[in-house]
Amino acid sequence: MEATLSAGTGTQTPHRTSAAELIAPIPGTPAFVAAVEGALTRFFADRRGTVEELGPVFVEAADALELFVLRGGKRTRPAFAWTGWLGAGGDAAGPDAAAVLTACAALELVQACALIHDDIIDSSRTRRRFPTVHVDFETRHRDRGWAGDSAHFGASVAILVGDLALAWADDMVHASGLEPTAIARFAPVWAGMRTEVLGGQLLDINGEAGGDESVEAALRINRYKTAAYTVERPLHLGAAIADADADLVAAYRTFGTDIGIAFQLRDDLLGVFGDPAITGKPSGDDLREGKHTVLLAEALRRADASDPAAAKLLRTSVGTDLDADEVAHLRTVLTDLGAADEVERRITELTDAGLAAIETSTATPAAKQQLRAMALAATKRTA
Amino acid sequence: MEATLSAGTGTQTPHRTSAAELIAPIPGTPAFVAAVEGALTRFFADRRGTVEELGPVFVEAADALELFVLRGGKRTRPAFAWTGWLGAGGDAAGPDAAAVLTACAALELVQACALIHDDIIDSSRTRRRFPTVHVDFETRHRDRGWAGDSAHFGASVAILVGDLALAWADDMVHASGLEPTAIARFAPVWAGMRTEVLGGQLLDINGEAGGDESVEAALRINRYKTAAYTVERPLHLGAAIADADADLVAAYRTFGTDIGIAFQLRDDLLGVFGDPAITGKPSGDDLREGKHTVLLAEALRRADASDPAAAKLLRTSVGTDLDADEVAHLRTVLTDLGAADEVERRITELTDAGLAAIETSTATPAAKQQLRAMALAATKRTA
Repeated sequence: MEATLSAGTGTQTPHRTSAAELIAPIPGTPAFVAAVEGALTRFFADRRGTVEELGPVFVEAADALELFVLRGGKRTRPAFAWTGWLGAGGDAAGPDAAAVLTACAALELVQACALIHDDIIDSSRTRRRFPTVHVDFETRHRDRGWAGDSAHFGASVAILVGDLALAWADDMVHASGLEPTAIARFAPVWAGMRTEVLGGQLLDINGEAGGDESVEAALRINRYKTAAYTVERPLHLGAAIADADADLVAAYRTFGTDIGIAFQLRDDLLGVFGDPAITGKPSGDDLREGKHTVLLAEALRRADASDPAAAKLLRTSVGTDLDADEVAHLRTVLTDLGAADEVERRITELTDAGLAAIETSTATPAAKQQLRAMALAATKRTA
Repeated sequence: MEATLSAGTGTQTPHRTSAAELIAPIPGTPAFVAAVEGALTRFFADRRGTVEELGPVFVEAADALELFVLRGGKRTRPAFAWTGWLGAGGDAAGPDAAAVLTACAALELVQACALIHDDIIDSSRTRRRFPTVHVDFETRHRDRGWAGDSAHFGASVAILVGDLALAWADDMVHASGLEPTAIARFAPVWAGMRTEVLGGQLLDINGEAGGDESVEAALRINRYKTAAYTVERPLHLGAAIADADADLVAAYRTFGTDIGIAFQLRDDLLGVFGDPAITGKPSGDDLREGKHTVLLAEALRRADASDPAAAKLLRTSVGTDLDADEVAHLRTVLTDLGAADEVERRITELTDAGLAAIETSTATPAAKQQLRAMALAATKRTA
């Protein structure tokens, strides 16, 4: 395959980047984020003709999606997919590199669908300090004095914009320049990933509505909504593109599941104990929202066994509009019950197991080093 | 490729049907509908292992989707895709036939997403006499006495079930057994189709909210929401699988656009003038809903030019809760303005043009005959 440049030309040719643009961008670096965003920008530019043909209403929707996708994010999923490909022998300076990077970047469009639809489901008004997509279109409807219910209109547009992101994620893979045989290997892993993340979201909303308080239920949601979707399957996708052997795939998947769950457990701890100045989120928001985390499930399990008063306090206060003192008190309760320590213990255990799987694998030394760094960044972080 | 049987074995192998099961099922016949439903049933059976691994909540969602997809429908889109393939030289008794039929049947999953999400957007309570997916899950939530707002829960589940349908549509194509090179030809057409139907839906809700009354706006929605999605692109997909030449593709697309728009215009006439005993829909529902049809746009255009009283009546009454006498009176107004005749004239003109494109094409004689019959069924129907 040629590795020629077609940055933002508005043509319908596959998305390619010059090899020079992409000499081994290292996940986690600004160069990697820029490479992913470059691939996304080129995809949207190549769609421009089709989008404009559909008229100004569609231009507005596609622009909203592009803005949403390019507004930021750590590009974690493309980073794991790219590392998975490199670790299985992919050559970042080779002729396939641009196509692979583009296919990895398509994960950000799946993520856009997940976030846009999640924001409707969670009735979230802002994301990354900007109005969510449904709120954005609700406001446009109101400002234009249009007929009908503005909130319903906003949610309707956001449902369709999310659908568009999901459909375009596939289209971006197909237009990436990957060989048809590579796409055929990629497809079943991609299928598994999308089913799992949707399954995780369904488990999440059912768990909240149905009030399942068990540690097992919370772990299952972590497994599918976060671990499989954020780490395990992206690595697996990279491996599938590189046609990796079954042993390496198995090692990636063990690493991905363990580190992915540990990542979410760290997130749960930060959601309660994190420093708002570092996390950027109000302290104790997870407690106010009544999020069914493993941390809370573990605390309830322990309280039910040994401290009925703490159990009652947790059940009556979590999920209500807590003030700062109440949040501080609940933190003490979670700590005194040993739940925070137990979650820390799980994080350590999972991180060790995940790292061990990678150490003994056939991944390249550079990829092993990269994955170690990513694992530590995901599980030891403070924000 | 082998043409062996794997009906509902629950394995993860590609979906194949014996040639005997599928000796040239003719679109529009019960045998064709059964063949499409058989392919869908096998797809869901093959997914069973994955679905069960995700737990009972996911089983419930997947079951709801399967029930929705298999509950009926004319299987119009698979029929055009299959006919497009046959007309470009596909062999219904050949080794690829089962894979092609499965890929055609996957269109029903795209349609499931469109309908499930449309029902949320339109706040529809029933479809084909059953509760819509969001109403179904709203009821389950209420019956179980779960926490939170039942209607919001139902809509949330239905958003995710629709997403699942969209993702699984792709997965079904990839697991169909089509060769990677055929999938590579199929992919850009599939991409165009999905973008167009989402574009059509966005135009539709924006048109209703923004109050664009023009004939052009109504025709543009017809073009993308119905014609491209129901006829043009399905035929094009079949042609792409068969690797048809550009002339045949162009003929299919002209036929598809013209017949697709004519089909929708017939639908618009039936929505106002149809016999409820035959259509199964209450008479005048399109008028009560204030649907922005070409029929209504044409009537408004004519009334604005010649009959201000009629224009005022249309603008104040359409979209309100009309009784039978008011509906009957509006029918007379639409007829007297000449709008109904004008729509009939367009249907005839489009049907003639579409048929002419096919007659002079290189499609097989059997496909030409089939497409003539499908065109007449779509444009002359009474239900």
